[in-house]
Amino acid sequence: CAQLLICVKLTPLLLLYNRIKASSLKLRFCTNETQATREKFVKKLQGLGFDISVDEVTAPAPAACRVLKERNLRPHLLVHNDVVPEFAEIDKANPNCVVIGDAADNFSYANLNEAFRILIGLENPVLISLGRGRYYKETDGLKLDVGAYMKALEYACDIQAEVVGKPAKMFFESALAELGVQPQQAIMIGDDIVNDVGGAQQCGMRALQVRTGKYRSFPVGGTDLPSVYTSICCLNKHLLVQQLGSNQVVDDIFICKKHFGKTLCM
Amino acid sequence: CAQLLICVKLTPLLLLYNRIKASSLKLRFCTNETQATREKFVKKLQGLGFDISVDEVTAPAPAACRVLKERNLRPHLLVHNDVVPEFAEIDKANPNCVVIGDAADNFSYANLNEAFRILIGLENPVLISLGRGRYYKETDGLKLDVGAYMKALEYACDIQAEVVGKPAKMFFESALAELGVQPQQAIMIGDDIVNDVGGAQQCGMRALQVRTGKYRSFPVGGTDLPSVYTSICCLNKHLLVQQLGSNQVVDDIFICKKHFGKTLCM
Repeated sequence: CAQLLICVKLTPLLLLYNRIKASSLKLRFCTNETQATREKFVKKLQGLGFDISVDEVTAPAPAACRVLKERNLRPHLLVHNDVVPEFAEIDKANPNCVVIGDAADNFSYANLNEAFRILIGLENPVLISLGRGRYYKETDGLKLDVGAYMKALEYACDIQAEVVGKPAKMFFESALAELGVQPQQAIMIGDDIVNDVGGAQQCGMRALQVRTGKYRSFPVGGTDLPSVYTSICCLNKHLLVQQLGSNQVVDDIFICKKHFGKTLCM
Repeated sequence: CAQLLICVKLTPLLLLYNRIKASSLKLRFCTNETQATREKFVKKLQGLGFDISVDEVTAPAPAACRVLKERNLRPHLLVHNDVVPEFAEIDKANPNCVVIGDAADNFSYANLNEAFRILIGLENPVLISLGRGRYYKETDGLKLDVGAYMKALEYACDIQAEVVGKPAKMFFESALAELGVQPQQAIMIGDDIVNDVGGAQQCGMRALQVRTGKYRSFPVGGTDLPSVYTSICCLNKHLLVQQLGSNQVVDDIFICKKHFGKTLCM
């Protein structure tokens, strides 16, 4: 069996993660994390007990670098300071495009204006966005994500950004290719109805939404509701990891008999 | 004759303005200025030599206050500090909506997040925007206008803002009503193809675009090109005011014979 389970965000899935690693299932972290290099991201997860390496992570910045190199684009970066090292080998002199990521406090009025002026001054403005997330949750509350600022620049310049992170189809296809599995063999688990669930569904994968992180109860247009919308909340309550041996909970979470056969009933 | 000439922005129109004031034409300033109260705005114009009073200005903040009062809305303000006095009489405790204006440096990440959290926490989020401008020009370059940040919040919250400034039809209708003229009797002069020209055209007025301020050569979808797109640049070069007696230039600027009869050939 080659089913792929993709986990996102730091949901308390460590024990589940370890069981998956010990099984024959393949797993990959798909993150829109653009506030850190993959090295830092992996180090953070390792600190939380995850046995993970950089090779197991699909992230937007390396995808953006591939696009920049292929098209001879020299970016002005409007990103978080901590992700700048991912662009170390990219020529950034005399920029002919803008790359926008989750810049957090770097989203000042002055910095937005600088990115805007570069774009509006180009004959063919190219805006590459490391995601299109609306918002995310941190310990001190919900925060605007890169998608909101991408929309601001799109509107100001009357252009369409090219998204290289989730929910871009290319992003999920990369993750699947890196593991050598087909979309219908894979399941996406995430807390974001658009970026995780919607993106995976667009790519032909099945998806589960967890009631953690930015989960909210209202549906968002254009995305099929994920299968276990109503019962997956137990992922948040450690019930999943405590009771992984229980057929009932496993049925609840993975709907293994209906959708995936028995391979996911660990 | 009751034709209305509406001027916007601080184009060098003082001499023209004085000739209009001395004529039988009516004139009104329609501004999306939300970085100052009308009092301050008028004082600035008076300082530049314009014989103008607060009563001759149509601006978004008073329009927003009317809407807030009518609907018992208590705003959280994401606006420029200098326009806050326009909302002095409005109850702002326990906000049930957000009013966004051209907040300039107040468009920090922290302030955007605060406005976002209020909106996303409301059962029926109401976002009132004092305009939908993309950008404007200041002495130190182009700057993002309120529209870009309105789009960011619209996207993050999956809502539509209610615009009370230009190019809202209501805004132009107010200006026309205040002077008692019909749309077809009026002409709008402005530098913004969407907010000035497009908004006026939607309302049944004719419009001229000046090649000053934020003027750029590319057309914007959804708006008819204004009549004298190619020759109005002389407004920027003081040629208009220098040569107002010349039939040729007046023909160029106002196309008086074709569109307005002779009343505008001052």
